[in-house]
Formats: sequence, structure tokens, C-alpha cells
Amino acid sequence: MSVLKGAAVIGQSGGPSSVINASAYGAIKAALDSDVITKVYGMQNGIVGLLNDNLFDLGKEDPAELAKMKYTPSSALGSCRYKIADPDEDDTDYKKILEMFRKYDIRYFFYNGGNDSMDTCNKISKFMLKNGYEVRCMGIPKTIDNDLAGTDHCPGFASAAKYIATSVAEVYRDCHVYDKGMITIIECMGRHAGWLTGAAALASLTGNGPDLVYLPEVDFDMPSFLKKVKDIYAKNKNVLVAVSEGIHDKDGKFIVEYAVSDAAVDAFGHKQLGGLAAYLAQECKNATGAKVRGIELSLLQRCAAHCASQTDIEESFAAGQAAANNAIAGVTDKMVGFECTRENGKYTCSTKLFDLTVVANAEKKVPREWINEEGDNVNEKFIAYALPLIQGETQMGHVNGLPDFVNLKKVKA
Amino acid sequence: MSVLKGAAVIGQSGGPSSVINASAYGAIKAALDSDVITKVYGMQNGIVGLLNDNLFDLGKEDPAELAKMKYTPSSALGSCRYKIADPDEDDTDYKKILEMFRKYDIRYFFYNGGNDSMDTCNKISKFMLKNGYEVRCMGIPKTIDNDLAGTDHCPGFASAAKYIATSVAEVYRDCHVYDKGMITIIECMGRHAGWLTGAAALASLTGNGPDLVYLPEVDFDMPSFLKKVKDIYAKNKNVLVAVSEGIHDKDGKFIVEYAVSDAAVDAFGHKQLGGLAAYLAQECKNATGAKVRGIELSLLQRCAAHCASQTDIEESFAAGQAAANNAIAGVTDKMVGFECTRENGKYTCSTKLFDLTVVANAEKKVPREWINEEGDNVNEKFIAYALPLIQGETQMGHVNGLPDFVNLKKVKA
Repeated sequence: MSVLKGAAVIGQSGGPSSVINASAYGAIKAALDSDVITKVYGMQNGIVGLLNDNLFDLGKEDPAELAKMKYTPSSALGSCRYKIADPDEDDTDYKKILEMFRKYDIRYFFYNGGNDSMDTCNKISKFMLKNGYEVRCMGIPKTIDNDLAGTDHCPGFASAAKYIATSVAEVYRDCHVYDKGMITIIECMGRHAGWLTGAAALASLTGNGPDLVYLPEVDFDMPSFLKKVKDIYAKNKNVLVAVSEGIHDKDGKFIVEYAVSDAAVDAFGHKQLGGLAAYLAQECKNATGAKVRGIELSLLQRCAAHCASQTDIEESFAAGQAAANNAIAGVTDKMVGFECTRENGKYTCSTKLFDLTVVANAEKKVPREWINEEGDNVNEKFIAYALPLIQGETQMGHVNGLPDFVNLKKVKA
Repeated sequence: MSVLKGAAVIGQSGGPSSVINASAYGAIKAALDSDVITKVYGMQNGIVGLLNDNLFDLGKEDPAELAKMKYTPSSALGSCRYKIADPDEDDTDYKKILEMFRKYDIRYFFYNGGNDSMDTCNKISKFMLKNGYEVRCMGIPKTIDNDLAGTDHCPGFASAAKYIATSVAEVYRDCHVYDKGMITIIECMGRHAGWLTGAAALASLTGNGPDLVYLPEVDFDMPSFLKKVKDIYAKNKNVLVAVSEGIHDKDGKFIVEYAVSDAAVDAFGHKQLGGLAAYLAQECKNATGAKVRGIELSLLQRCAAHCASQTDIEESFAAGQAAANNAIAGVTDKMVGFECTRENGKYTCSTKLFDLTVVANAEKKVPREWINEEGDNVNEKFIAYALPLIQGETQMGHVNGLPDFVNLKKVKA
């Protein structure tokens, strides 16, 4: 092991999750506790803060306040959606980053985010290696979408899954109280991967699960969907459906596009989806005459820290810690993920290092064999996978009956 | 005190809440524990179940299972939206009810619901008195809308308020992570009274509160709203707004009605019937060019038992208990409400009996002096009123990391 003395910098990027700060705090705490890391800086709004020399000194935070990060949702350091260029095409940003690394003697770079963030981390790592600047770069994953390759699951997925399953069970209760009947559509996030929507099926374990669950992994067929809804409605009077925002027809066209023709496009070229639940609810009403309700879980599902999985919180914290400790031990250019076992209902989880090149920009979908043959629900394989992840209630603190979230001072570096 | 031996029947009506079953359970438990109450029946889907001789024997339920009612949202007995006729115009239903009372020797009638339910309870009580049938009728209030007259607050309001304040604080965190800025509109329930929307302002106590809060108690002016949003956006880059579904202009026209008339047309020429939040978000986008998001809390806010206020749960339970115990002691034709004090930050709450005639069909709004002069937020008077109600986290049980809701056998009477 080669000892590398110097400062560390950590940034967060991409969409929020309930536990992204638990991961960041794991890395920050391990770095602050380390003898070889001299300073720990936070980037204000991810890589944008680094590029603009907008760093703050995390060593100046009150330790008790900092510890609240573990239970605070949504990037406490600030996030960004900045797409870094390919260094072979434009290395301006990389030169600026190198300048910043030299200015602050940064030898440890931690980046906390999803697919794009792992890609950013990887590119910076490669550039610094090529330019002979020694810095250890570690990716700390975060994505409620659970679509990162390699790792068993992603920090953040389980808490969103727990919130979705809990909310679906509660909404089921709500929809089923009347004698008149109702069709309810619940829309979950997930453009290309159906992990979150599949989590809605966990509510079935409470006896309050959805009748139909549609993932983007299977082509969506409107006539078949409406026929099923009609049949269930005729039989049970109540129908509860969970759909992924990213369901599409056999030609790959998003169903929501049939409702909204000019969906906006974000900085990465992703289409901004929305309004699917209301659209499907209306189609069901047209087909059955039933009372309908469309519910979009929207941002709630990715920031509902009050319903986070304590398993997720502890694992996320451990992932951040492992990133820092492995970097200190000499590792670089890796992402910390999880390796898990689920033998005979016993769940174990340990951190494992993955090559950033493997992870970056790959996308892990729900295996077809975890979805039933009809393609209208997940099966017991999905449940066995997801159930251990949502165990444990958050130990979040409360003040005034409300969440006690962190407030960082962010003293300028 | 006159001892009245006989059976009790309990029903639930109207829209769900997180704690309606806590109230019902309070009454059921007190009735089951009583020496004078011979049997305790539940109505399947409220008064409709009574009219159709669809009762079940609550004495046949497992006591431990029954106790889970305290933490299960949405009428476990089943609900209805049946409006009983005026007995002077049509007494068919009343005669049927009298027949059922005689058949089961029912001497105690408990009805758990909102305004309409208190009215139903009152009418039945009056009819039975007129027809010389001795039965003690008690109303047990429930409404997240908090609009019942007399009582300090209604069981169910506080849990919805806690969920709204918590979710607003979490969404605030989510909206504020980016460097780009965003305008977010959160729509809360409340057609005529702004209690729930006002609760969004409780999030301010966490430092993560909404910038603007619009209640139906004040006329909504679109140009003034857009100007405020523009100014805040220019200054802070982020704007978070809570609106009541029932906001209306000075002519009394609901703002959501403009959404319908201004609705976009989809590829098939169908009008896109968005909700109020989506409509206001679009208006803000048009006015500022900002990224916007509309979030409708929808059914989630009235069934989120996982985020219920333990204060609300205990008070609701106490209200149900008081209904049964008072009836046993000879009281009839009353609703159990609350009388509270909030002197020097110390909160006390005790049950109090209100005349059903006073309560039925009246509607309590947020006092104008609890709303700021500008009419764009509640003030410290509202906060002082609502804050004690949301204290305490639910003690709901969990199985598999999910809520452990009650499952009643409902053995036919």
C-alpha cells in the first residue's frame, strides 16, 4: 500500500434519492477520520462547483449536524446535470479540474451519482492518469432506478421501493372502501428499467397489492390492457394498476407520447415524461364508464426519506465508507457496489468494487424471467430479490414532529 | 343513569382518513368491554350495509387483529356515499333501519364520518325518538378537511397535515438541489376550507417551507400570483408553492375550471384534462421559461398511515371510546369532538360533546386573521394551532418491512 497524503473532494450529481447523503456522509466521515486525508472539500452542485472553484470545507461543519446527512434526502452538497465532454474532443474542463486539484492538493476524488456520474468519474480518472497527476477516483453509486450494471442493487432503490410498496398498500385500502368501485392507476418512475414499478407488487405481501403491474421491459399493448382492466372491474369492481412512466408499444413509442406530443428534452437528451397515469385513467374510463383516478408518485418517491429503508440507509453509508477506505488503501477508478446472497431467505450484503468502465453508461433491466409470462406483473423471483432490501424503518430524528434534516454551513474553501 | 341493555352497531361513511379506524376501534373496544352492550355489529359499507341487512359480528374477531385497526387507514368496515332522505319527505330508509334495530335489538348506534355522516346520525336519532324506539345515537367525527363546526379539530386532519408538511419539506429538498432552478406546485385537498394546504406551511419550521401558500378562503388572482412567482424565481431561482384544489377567482370560479377550458389537445384531438397543479405549473412556465413541476398529493394525503400523527391516532381512539362510554352512560344525539388549550406552548386536549344539530352540515373555514394580509400564506396563528396536532410518530407495526394492516374476518351477523 502506498500512502498518498492530500485533500479529498466529494461531489453529488444527478437526480436526488432518499439516501444519497447517507452514502456521501459515509465517505466524508471516513475521510475526516483518516490520518492521510488532510482536508475534505464538498463541491457546490457537483462537478460544476469544482469547475467554478466553488468548494466548501466539510471539516468546518459541526460533527453532530453533519451526521444528520444520513437521514436527509436529496444531495445536501447540491447537484448538477452537467455532461462533461469527451476529453479527446474537448479537454477544457479536465484542464480546469487538474488546475483545481493542484490548487487544493486534491488526491482523492469521490463522485456520488448514477450512470452519467460514473462516466464522469471514469473520464476524470483516465485524464489524470494520462497527465501524470496522482489522484484516486472512486464512484459512489446512487440511483433509485436501480439500473447500474454489476452491483446487486443501487443505494436509493430500496427506499423508493419501500415508499412505493407502502403507498400502494395504503392507496389500495383507500380505493377499496366504497361499494361503488373504482379504477386507479399509479405511475412510478423508470424510463427504461421497471425496478421501481415492480416494487409496487411488494404491496401484495400485505394483501393490498396491485392487480396489474406494467414494466418497460415488456411491450405495452393498449387493447390487451383495457380488456384485462374491464374483466377485473367486472369481477371485483375495483382495479389497481401500477405502471412505469416508460411503458412503450411494440414500436418503442412511449405510451405517454400518445397523450403529449411535444415532450420536453433534458440536457442528456432524455425525454421529459409525465401525465401517463391521467391518460391511462381516462382510457379506462372510456372503456368501462367506471370512476377512475390517476396518481403520479412524482418526486415524492425519490425524496420520501420519512419512509426510507434502514437497510438501504446503512448499506448506502457503508458504500460511501468503503469508497474512502479503499481509496486510502490505494484503490482507484472503481465504483463501490454490493454483492449479496439470498439463500433460504437469509440475506447478506457486502461491498464490492466494480470497474468504472464496466459500470459507466450500461443499463441493467429487470430480467424477463422475473416478470410473469403474461407480462402484466412481476413474479416471486422479483419479490425474493427486492424484499430483503426494504427491511427496517428509518431512524430519522424529528423536531416538532417533522424531519430533522441537515443544514450545512458550507464554509468557503 | 339509566342502564340500557342491547346491541351496538357501528358504521363508517365518506372519504377515508389515516385514523378513521382508530376512532372506530375506540368505540368498538369500549362497546366490547362493556357489560350492558350485548353484541357489537359492524355495517358493511356504512348505512347501506344496515339497510341491506349486511352486518357482521365484531365480537367474533380476534382481539389482537382487531387492535391493528388503530394503525390501518381507510374505513376497515367499508364506506359509502349514501345520502339519506329527509324523513318528512321519504321515510322508507328510516323504517327499514327501525326494522333492523328491532331485529338485532340495537340500542346503540355509532356513526363515524364527516359532515354528511353527522347529519345521517342526527336524522336517525330524531326519527327513532319520534317513533318511541330507545336508541342512543352518537357521531364520531372524521375528516381530513377539518371543516366540522364546534370541535377544535377533526380526527384525521392532523395525520394528513403531518404527511403534507413532511412531503413538502422533502420535495423542497428535492427541488433545491440543482443549480438551474425550478418552480414546483404542490396541490393539496380542500375544496372550500384551506386547513390541509395551510399545513404545508408547517414545513417552514424545518427551514424547507413553501414560498407561497394559497387557500380557498382568499380569492386567487392569476396575474398577482404569476408576478410573485416571477419575482421569487428571479431572486432565488427556486419557487415552491402549495395550493388548495379549491382556489377560485373573485367571481367564485374554480381555477381548475380554467385548466379544463385552456387544456391542450392531444394527437387524437382529445382535450388533456390536467389537474390544477399541472395547469398552474404550465402557467408559471409560460410566464418565466423555468423548469416546472406540478405535484398532486391526491389520495396519498388521506391514507398515508405510515406518516400519521400519533397524537391524532390517540385522540381519534379517545373520541371513539368517549362515544361508546357516553352512550352507555345515557347520552344520545351528540358528536364527540375536542376542546383544546394551547397556553404558552402547552397543549391539552379533552373530548367534548357537541349537539349533532349544531355540527351537521356546517363548515368551518380557516379564519381570515390566520392568513397573512397578502393572502399568500398562513401566519403564526395557524402554525400555533396546527403544530401540537402533528406531534409523535406512528407506532404502526410492520411485517416484511411493510405496514401490518388489519384483516377482518367479517363473520355475518
